[in-house]
Amino acid sequence: MKTDIQIAQEANMKHIKEVAGLLHIAEEDLEFYGKYKAKLSDELWDKVKTNKDGKLILVTAINPTPAGEGKTTTTVGLGQAFGKLGRKAVIALREPSLGPCFGIKGGAAGGGYAQVVPMEDLNLHFTGDFHAITSANNLLAAMLDNHIQQGNALNIDPNQVVWKRCLDMNDRVLRNIVVGLGKKTDGVVREDHFIITVASEIMAILCLAENMEDLKARLGRIIVAYTYEGTPVTAKELNAVGSMAALLKDAIMPNLIQTLENTPAIVHGGPFANIAHGCNSVRATKTALKLADYTITEAGFGADLGAEKFFDIKCRMAGLKPDAVVLVATVRALKYNGGIPKTELSAENLDALKKGIVNLEKHIENVQKYGVPCVVTLNRFVTDSDVELAYVKEFCESRGCEFALSEVWEKGGEGGIQLANKVMETLEKKESHFKPLYDDSLSIREKIETVAKEIYGAASVTFDPLALKAMNRLEELGFGNMPVCMAKNQYSLSDDPTLLGRPENFNINIREIYVSAGAGFVVAITGTIMTMPGLPKKPAAENIDVNEDGVITGLF
Amino acid sequence: MKTDIQIAQEANMKHIKEVAGLLHIAEEDLEFYGKYKAKLSDELWDKVKTNKDGKLILVTAINPTPAGEGKTTTTVGLGQAFGKLGRKAVIALREPSLGPCFGIKGGAAGGGYAQVVPMEDLNLHFTGDFHAITSANNLLAAMLDNHIQQGNALNIDPNQVVWKRCLDMNDRVLRNIVVGLGKKTDGVVREDHFIITVASEIMAILCLAENMEDLKARLGRIIVAYTYEGTPVTAKELNAVGSMAALLKDAIMPNLIQTLENTPAIVHGGPFANIAHGCNSVRATKTALKLADYTITEAGFGADLGAEKFFDIKCRMAGLKPDAVVLVATVRALKYNGGIPKTELSAENLDALKKGIVNLEKHIENVQKYGVPCVVTLNRFVTDSDVELAYVKEFCESRGCEFALSEVWEKGGEGGIQLANKVMETLEKKESHFKPLYDDSLSIREKIETVAKEIYGAASVTFDPLALKAMNRLEELGFGNMPVCMAKNQYSLSDDPTLLGRPENFNINIREIYVSAGAGFVVAITGTIMTMPGLPKKPAAENIDVNEDGVITGLF
Repeated sequence: MKTDIQIAQEANMKHIKEVAGLLHIAEEDLEFYGKYKAKLSDELWDKVKTNKDGKLILVTAINPTPAGEGKTTTTVGLGQAFGKLGRKAVIALREPSLGPCFGIKGGAAGGGYAQVVPMEDLNLHFTGDFHAITSANNLLAAMLDNHIQQGNALNIDPNQVVWKRCLDMNDRVLRNIVVGLGKKTDGVVREDHFIITVASEIMAILCLAENMEDLKARLGRIIVAYTYEGTPVTAKELNAVGSMAALLKDAIMPNLIQTLENTPAIVHGGPFANIAHGCNSVRATKTALKLADYTITEAGFGADLGAEKFFDIKCRMAGLKPDAVVLVATVRALKYNGGIPKTELSAENLDALKKGIVNLEKHIENVQKYGVPCVVTLNRFVTDSDVELAYVKEFCESRGCEFALSEVWEKGGEGGIQLANKVMETLEKKESHFKPLYDDSLSIREKIETVAKEIYGAASVTFDPLALKAMNRLEELGFGNMPVCMAKNQYSLSDDPTLLGRPENFNINIREIYVSAGAGFVVAITGTIMTMPGLPKKPAAENIDVNEDGVITGLF
Repeated sequence: MKTDIQIAQEANMKHIKEVAGLLHIAEEDLEFYGKYKAKLSDELWDKVKTNKDGKLILVTAINPTPAGEGKTTTTVGLGQAFGKLGRKAVIALREPSLGPCFGIKGGAAGGGYAQVVPMEDLNLHFTGDFHAITSANNLLAAMLDNHIQQGNALNIDPNQVVWKRCLDMNDRVLRNIVVGLGKKTDGVVREDHFIITVASEIMAILCLAENMEDLKARLGRIIVAYTYEGTPVTAKELNAVGSMAALLKDAIMPNLIQTLENTPAIVHGGPFANIAHGCNSVRATKTALKLADYTITEAGFGADLGAEKFFDIKCRMAGLKPDAVVLVATVRALKYNGGIPKTELSAENLDALKKGIVNLEKHIENVQKYGVPCVVTLNRFVTDSDVELAYVKEFCESRGCEFALSEVWEKGGEGGIQLANKVMETLEKKESHFKPLYDDSLSIREKIETVAKEIYGAASVTFDPLALKAMNRLEELGFGNMPVCMAKNQYSLSDDPTLLGRPENFNINIREIYVSAGAGFVVAITGTIMTMPGLPKKPAAENIDVNEDGVITGLF
């Protein structure tokens, strides 16, 4: 069987100007990065901004399991299927992070015959957006420490610096460090931390900014530290906004690539889906809506994290109105949720399926709370039995959900035609009545409780004393009207990753609360969230190579 | 008066495919990065490698002073002048480092009407080469610390790790840090250091590598640490070579941009000129030689550092044979060398000029030791008097040197025609008998002494005990046949930056010696070399901005 990278390298890619032509984008509105990647110019947005919006389709999933669900694969395959049907569709994806490519996990380019290409470029430096974010993040850090060193006119307390440095690398020794050692000229000593670039607030800001003006305003609001008196110090006060914006001037332009079947794919931004909102950029989504009749996008992790934030943060802030949701599951993942170990998922097991399908049930109910029509799809595996597939179909339909099988991994767009037809049928027959889950005007506590109870199914919510104190302080500082960004493990609806299926009667404990003032949300952390991954004993990096002709091997 | 960035933004840039057309490069051999930047493909090299080489002209300078000499400006202006004369010329420059743009110093794009453009792009992320180097450098560091964490099969002594992390940022607090704090899963605690990206050995390697195969071989030879027994541990032993090479696969391709007058400029790589060799890439220079009749290149700092390393490291390793040297000075800088403070350089002062010209004299003698014909040029300032200019001209000509004035800063290519004609005349009349200063086969000590005495004019050389010990150990390990890379302050021919002019009877003390085994040279350090700059009290970053149309201001 061919690997993903082999399939990708055999793709018949078109020059990106031809792919852009499918969307009637003129060559002058493209900034090429080689032959198969381009950035979309600001001028393009000015030309299309008065177009009518196409339909917005969110692809989300049940809670992720080691069995694999294939959310990105479905997103890409569905786009390919629309293309096969002669429809004008665009896929809007996140950019993958470089660091994890060298660890365990593969990239975010889809899989099998439903991938975006060139996948090596996408997973390595791509068009440099993440490097620009890394630079802007670390410039701000350098200016902050330099300010402290050069007299500290703003009276910053070195023990209350909250801005962290970042690298797009899995590097655990940088999680907790001490900087400024050496001589007096080598800076002020303090504890510091590196996070991975996708966890930088600048990533979230880039993805939520409407344009350069909004980007600069958001950058200026970033809180980098507190004074000895506890007053927030912002990036604007450090006079860092213009330089950071200059570093990001190309990064805010969306990137255009293509699928294996030459469907246009706008791939832009990639914030974490726990401490940030986990969606591609607002600019990318809005541009896609103007360019195509169908925009297919996805959000990070399962629907409890990804879809909730897509709706309550991204759509709320950007004024987007999603028209349909595709909820991805697999029979194997549902059986895993029913308590079956990974090694035994190939055997038919209707009892396990019935036991595990409650996870899907909860996500269906959640999506329906937002008033958006929902289509469930199963990514078909050869080991799935007809009885199992029929059971899931009936289960969904009895809950007011549409259902379609997907075979895009194996068959590309052809394998997604059933799903695409079902989505189009749903868009025609069912109207979306989208509204966010909660009002901005609720207190932070009420907002957290609403998400925890309504979406996760928690019975109660508790707060660590420090979290409570921080929450009250943030309301005093005027951040009470922001939406909440819940940081929770992705594996369970609860805050205990081992509780699969549909946990009940559980408590959610909020350990920490802080504000991402530039992004515009209050982060509430349950459990421990890792913002700087490590490498495994045998890193994937050891198997990657490139030959004299520039052909890469071992990347997935 | 217009600033450099204003002049640059008013440039009539041609699409880079037109600039490439001047060198008969086909569009298919270009990888565009927007409309004004491109990478030159491997296929292009295959097509041109059997062409006859054009002439190779090195532009170097006297020791830098606060008065400014304009080495890059001369390089660019000379290229423009060749263009004005209808000659097929290419400029081969280093890429500037991002970090210092936010500190005090401007970029390396030339000045006035002799600049390469687009200067904002060049000085910010350009085509991402430096970000790729940062990533490769830090992947190696992460794999190293991960190896120690995951059982340390290679028996690495954490106190003898010599590989440092890097960022392209001026950030003094990262000079000396402690990593790996926190829990057991957060890595092994050790002291660590960040350097600026241009100081990474990978930068030197990229610039010396002939092709991908050579790049990989060099990356594999990098020494990252020593075992408890003192045995070197290499990047190859960490299985990091393939991944690093994959990260560098685009970065090894030279970049093509243009001057204000549309002269082609190949801008590629930019290693430090103290702990590394300070020249653009071998690939860039070799490609330029195949594409044009005249290749004009430069080396870092003054001729004692830049030209010496260009000759003894780059030309030696790559088999290059320079045909002429242009040695840049200004009347102001020569008077500064004569002991006149910066504020009094505008007044005519023949005594000071006579006193300071010995600095130029020594550099002329040095260039002549390599057997390469030399043309001295003065970058003309309005305050220079005719008497002063005439004195310098006669001084040079009496020493067997050609002489020409340059007014490229003010007049662009037009202001360099006199110099270009003089260079062409020299190339016709005088043959180059280039040979490196010393034989590889000398001992490390002999090589260091040769450079210190022959080039710097030192009377003696001493070694700190640890340097002596390291030197002996490196010879035992088989690195004795490598050329030496001298790390010395750039301001004086001696190791004391306050000794201007032509110091005599001084001693050079070698404080530290180590090997850059991948780059292929032994580094000998005099004094203190800063490999991670800091930001000044009022960083340039505070004045940089970008508007809604993406126009950058305040960058120089």
